[in-house]
Amino acid sequence: MHQGLRRLSAVIMHLATFTWRPDVTNDDVVAVIEALSSLPDQIPELLSYSFGPDLGLREGNADFAVAAVLESPQTLPAYLDHPEHVRILSEFIAPSMATRQAVQIELPDEAAS
Amino acid sequence: MHQGLRRLSAVIMHLATFTWRPDVTNDDVVAVIEALSSLPDQIPELLSYSFGPDLGLREGNADFAVAAVLESPQTLPAYLDHPEHVRILSEFIAPSMATRQAVQIELPDEAAS
Repeated sequence: MHQGLRRLSAVIMHLATFTWRPDVTNDDVVAVIEALSSLPDQIPELLSYSFGPDLGLREGNADFAVAAVLESPQTLPAYLDHPEHVRILSEFIAPSMATRQAVQIELPDEAAS
Repeated sequence: MHQGLRRLSAVIMHLATFTWRPDVTNDDVVAVIEALSSLPDQIPELLSYSFGPDLGLREGNADFAVAAVLESPQTLPAYLDHPEHVRILSEFIAPSMATRQAVQIELPDEAAS
């Protein structure tokens, strides 16, 4: 499903997984969630936006994840570099973050709807 | 969107981000992609399944990601512990993998459709 030529019009998913510093509190995480909740209304390029704490179903997991679906690779900056997203990263996420892994992948056509 | 009580019926997303070892080739990654492509037909609990190499849009990204949507936390083992998934992890992914971060998050209700 991802072996085709990369089309400029492809829908993409941005995924980011995070681990928190040992001193991060539940209130810190709630503040991150509340801040991120404001983004979909401000960034129309977000086709879907999901995020939250790890559910604790498996040992060894990271602590938090974000999955953002965007209408094209060209619209990634409209999310990642949006001033409010940059502010949330700087004020809420960076102070709590131990590690982060981000990836952008192409989604199959049927994910565009 | 994630502050509610955790419902046992909640749709969840499993996210995993990977970095590859330096000696991993494009053919190795194609083999991973082809192997993972066989899973949706074998695991009906997968509501959606997206994966692929990082598109190279941002510096510092990891190399590969998987996003699997499942109908409930209870169905996570139907995917993660499925014998074919376990075989692909062991034969195709583990030999190429440098690091992995996995998270499961709850999705809002509208993601269930």
